Amino acid sequence: MDKAKVGLIGTGIMGEPMARNLLRAGLAVWVHSRTKRKAERLLDEGAQWVDSPAKLAEAVETVITVVADSPDVEAVYVGAGGVCEGLGPGTLCIDMSTVAPETAQRVDEAVRKRKGRFLDAPVSGGKTGAEAGTLSIMVGGDEADVGRARAVFDVLGKSTVHCGPVGTGQLTKLCNQILCGLNLLGVCEAMVFGERAGLDLETMLAAVSKGAAGSWALENLGSRMIHRDFAPMFMVALQNKDLRITLDSARRLDVPLPGTALVSQLLTANQAAGEGREGTQAMLKVLERLAGTKHDSSLQK
Amino acid sequence: MDKAKVGLIGTGIMGEPMARNLLRAGLAVWVHSRTKRKAERLLDEGAQWVDSPAKLAEAVETVITVVADSPDVEAVYVGAGGVCEGLGPGTLCIDMSTVAPETAQRVDEAVRKRKGRFLDAPVSGGKTGAEAGTLSIMVGGDEADVGRARAVFDVLGKSTVHCGPVGTGQLTKLCNQILCGLNLLGVCEAMVFGERAGLDLETMLAAVSKGAAGSWALENLGSRMIHRDFAPMFMVALQNKDLRITLDSARRLDVPLPGTALVSQLLTANQAAGEGREGTQAMLKVLERLAGTKHDSSLQK
Repeated sequence: MDKAKVGLIGTGIMGEPMARNLLRAGLAVWVHSRTKRKAERLLDEGAQWVDSPAKLAEAVETVITVVADSPDVEAVYVGAGGVCEGLGPGTLCIDMSTVAPETAQRVDEAVRKRKGRFLDAPVSGGKTGAEAGTLSIMVGGDEADVGRARAVFDVLGKSTVHCGPVGTGQLTKLCNQILCGLNLLGVCEAMVFGERAGLDLETMLAAVSKGAAGSWALENLGSRMIHRDFAPMFMVALQNKDLRITLDSARRLDVPLPGTALVSQLLTANQAAGEGREGTQAMLKVLERLAGTKHDSSLQK
Repeated sequence: MDKAKVGLIGTGIMGEPMARNLLRAGLAVWVHSRTKRKAERLLDEGAQWVDSPAKLAEAVETVITVVADSPDVEAVYVGAGGVCEGLGPGTLCIDMSTVAPETAQRVDEAVRKRKGRFLDAPVSGGKTGAEAGTLSIMVGGDEADVGRARAVFDVLGKSTVHCGPVGTGQLTKLCNQILCGLNLLGVCEAMVFGERAGLDLETMLAAVSKGAAGSWALENLGSRMIHRDFAPMFMVALQNKDLRITLDSARRLDVPLPGTALVSQLLTANQAAGEGREGTQAMLKVLERLAGTKHDSSLQK
């Protein structure tokens, strides 16, 4: 029996380890990326290169896309040489990028016109989760298509939740990013306050992290902040891209999100300081700069 | 051998179950409260009533105070008929209220003048934690005094962390409240966004709560919000009192806390709407009101 044929477009920080996990699970994997160099390690490991999204779509039964932003997804699907040009009847397309819910709906329409099937399936878990195959996958689309994709999802993630029709995967991911952003802001404010108040920060973390103040962000980013380790688990620029999409969607829905807007502004300050490619925990540095360096506690304020 | 003699001042939501746990642990417990009625159940269960903080301090070796705010603590210790008037040499005073770090330092000075010992030991865990004896206790003071208090702390809490000198218990608690406040805001914004976007909220919670978006607040308050259960785990008015103390301390330290300030403003909106005695998860209602009721998604914005 033939191996199941899967194609993956976008072999970046997330896409590369995801394609690798598919290869290791014994699938036949075709890849395409804007810059071929980024796919070379995968080609050494047994992946097949194709020159365009259209040709990739011709070669496989399942197309996975993992690119950066909404315009990239639109270009990959409906641009010249895009996936839609090569789509056969019944081909399953799974977009695992984080993009606007409206983009998911537009691409779904285009794919359906070509008799293909579409799922939006953004992920949480970052590079570490992609490498370990432990991503959380939030899926929007038809039940039957989610069923067909299950084998692939089981290779890539530890949990897959079907959230509703096309677009709801993205909307759920945006809820996820609202939470991540505000939990992060909480950790940064607690750390800069504790630091300036002269607390031993490791002791403070130990005292608060197991109770009502606890979060994944505190557990995972707090001690990185203490050790001034700003290497990305998830990059400032990408988090802010996700929050831009969130705030755009929220504006369309007439939902003010004052906290999320603040988080986005602080991440923009990171980017202004050239910290866009650092981890989101670098937001601590923005708050430290706001708190200045010449503290005079003798002033009555 | 005599039973260890402990006095507790302030038999409110937190103090009453804490005194009860001390009684059940076999200690001799004296109580005082502004309104005697609030202590009556404890008297039925074996506690001794005393008419003033001063008389309570005369009767016991360890004084515990659990009152609402900084002025209450100052009145209980240094006011007329206060603890300091009845203090014998070596009596250990433990303030488990959440108050300004400066209050803790002032009371410590007053207690030392009377040759007593003082610890600030605010708690996290709310009414449930007080009842179950599973509070998290954050302690500031001298090591030897923390050692003397250990037996009492072990009855009241599941974890005690010694944070540093007097005042650091309170400062650590303020870090805790910064975190709780911003985690709460994250849950509220994710819920109102998901609600207005038409997501099934239980499914959304299931999809995001185990990953990088996870927090105690999401786990414990998310489903309460879905079920419109606004009964207090921790009251809006008390959380906002704690944030007022936090923002006052932060201002003295020259530390801007824009997120915490926003959380406090939203809780003030709760209080303006008569929701001060509801649980902090009622902040969802403020965001829902901001998002209005007449959403027109057909508008291009």
